Amino acid sequence: MLKRYGRQTVLFNSPVGIMATASVVGPKEGQGPLAAYFDQIEADPMFGTESWEKAESKFAETAAEMAAKKADTAIGDFEYIIAGDLLNQSTGSIFGLRNTNAPYLGIFGACSAMGEGMSLGGMLIDGGFAQKVICLASSHFCSAEKQFRFPLEFGSQRPPTSSWTVTGSAAVALGGTTGGPSVMGCTTGKMVDMGVTDANNMGAAMAGAAADTIVAHLTDTGRSTDYYDKIITGDLGYIGQELLLALVKKKGYDITHKHIDCGIEIFDKNTQDTLAGGSGCACSGVTFAGYFYDKMKRGELNKILFVPTGALMSPTSVQQGESIPGIAHAVVIENA
Amino acid sequence: MLKRYGRQTVLFNSPVGIMATASVVGPKEGQGPLAAYFDQIEADPMFGTESWEKAESKFAETAAEMAAKKADTAIGDFEYIIAGDLLNQSTGSIFGLRNTNAPYLGIFGACSAMGEGMSLGGMLIDGGFAQKVICLASSHFCSAEKQFRFPLEFGSQRPPTSSWTVTGSAAVALGGTTGGPSVMGCTTGKMVDMGVTDANNMGAAMAGAAADTIVAHLTDTGRSTDYYDKIITGDLGYIGQELLLALVKKKGYDITHKHIDCGIEIFDKNTQDTLAGGSGCACSGVTFAGYFYDKMKRGELNKILFVPTGALMSPTSVQQGESIPGIAHAVVIENA
Repeated sequence: MLKRYGRQTVLFNSPVGIMATASVVGPKEGQGPLAAYFDQIEADPMFGTESWEKAESKFAETAAEMAAKKADTAIGDFEYIIAGDLLNQSTGSIFGLRNTNAPYLGIFGACSAMGEGMSLGGMLIDGGFAQKVICLASSHFCSAEKQFRFPLEFGSQRPPTSSWTVTGSAAVALGGTTGGPSVMGCTTGKMVDMGVTDANNMGAAMAGAAADTIVAHLTDTGRSTDYYDKIITGDLGYIGQELLLALVKKKGYDITHKHIDCGIEIFDKNTQDTLAGGSGCACSGVTFAGYFYDKMKRGELNKILFVPTGALMSPTSVQQGESIPGIAHAVVIENA
Repeated sequence: MLKRYGRQTVLFNSPVGIMATASVVGPKEGQGPLAAYFDQIEADPMFGTESWEKAESKFAETAAEMAAKKADTAIGDFEYIIAGDLLNQSTGSIFGLRNTNAPYLGIFGACSAMGEGMSLGGMLIDGGFAQKVICLASSHFCSAEKQFRFPLEFGSQRPPTSSWTVTGSAAVALGGTTGGPSVMGCTTGKMVDMGVTDANNMGAAMAGAAADTIVAHLTDTGRSTDYYDKIITGDLGYIGQELLLALVKKKGYDITHKHIDCGIEIFDKNTQDTLAGGSGCACSGVTFAGYFYDKMKRGELNKILFVPTGALMSPTSVQQGESIPGIAHAVVIENA
């Protein structure tokens, strides 16, 4: 029987339990409002390595090992590891996970990686292809600035629309029926191109995709916004949030009082100089794995729609005048 | 019921039919031994665009549209498009497919993209999450040389171990039970790091992963090599093939008379100066979509193990002294 609802949504036959999550972040995240929720705050942004790229891989490796340990499973016993990051050729994930000895599925959805990974992981388990899957995402402020914008040493001024890439990695171990927070289904996003060409305004580039996926999810399932305690986007930030709420309203839904954005929650913009908010694959990753997962385990939240968002571009595509399509993948997570 | 065999393999409940394939290649591929099998040979490597990157996207767009048309399905009616390429942040696929209006899952497995995509596409259909999926891979000699090695204008001499990135894109439309060539299962590869640090010797970097996945597949399923008419790797080339055969033999299997490599088949090394062979995501993609799919439809081949191979690295990782892990994803394709 096809588990499909409408154009973009699947709902699983059985809840796919979340066995454990792990969140490992850098020093700036550890000074932010969610510090108490992270598993490990690493004081050294180089994480004892000799480059930012190697540091990002160390964050990924640490998060994967921690999630496996919490799930009481050797990392090589997971049937799939699904991982993605922002670095060219996904080297953050690859060099962090090359020693796991587990079947590996690399993904690329820019900062929507945790949404794409949890969607695929849930489907592989619900489809009978696996019992235990690790989904992982990582990003690093310094490796991202170097690759996408300017070398840090250049001391470029950041425009107010720019976001701050989260340093860290999150891993979510899916499997079993734990009775707690579980993945119930997903709505896979289409690429939505709003014509934004400013690589320093990712919130605007992604807002259309987030709105499209959220509205598709509600339409596909016939659910009202009341179904969810919170609708949580990945890294739209302050500018993207405003656009999202307006775009969703135009389609007939009001999510003003349901919406939270991980990029807004993770930093204190007044004291941390993070401008439009946090971003990066780790932004939605660690905010879910640390903060929201905890709130669900305590029963403070019971039904969330988790919608990591990604801006699809490279420095080359921007230099060649391409606009920046967005994508957003929604994951239904409920206390089962 | 878990559809899992051994550590890395799944076999589907029902064959996942291949509705159609499309192969669109550049001029050099059109002068090679497989020319007659490709759907479209584009004489202009720029494909009418203004950059190599945009050309690569045009190849991807053309292949996707052609596969959809052959499958008699509007491209927006596919429930997932799964695509990957070699460009930074996967822009080959992204800008080629941004107007498809279909749920999009980006993957990164370097040149193993078609193997990873067909594995995931098969699982999403067999798992009841979709009825029709397009799997796509693309690469372009010029965009790859520019990004990974030297600008073409530099006129760098190519070492004999180097391979020639295939220009083109392949799309495979999965769905339905056509009775013809069908995906029956897959063996998802682990990363295997042989310690190779020479970015001009991808065959050596990937041979260990190909051997690991092929042996895992045979062990997991209990099949002998006789089960398959051919075991087809992606882009090991001449050097990688020699290593593969030796590594597999060390594990107790002899695939000498079963093995074909797409990178060896696609070019004539004597007349085309392609050194160690063809490579790139499109290498295994178009060779399967054009040549092997045709041979299966004619009944000249009935059971193949299709094993696209990838070398996981970036220029940055190589510059920082990292070795190059390989990965290989095996797809079981049989006339059902």
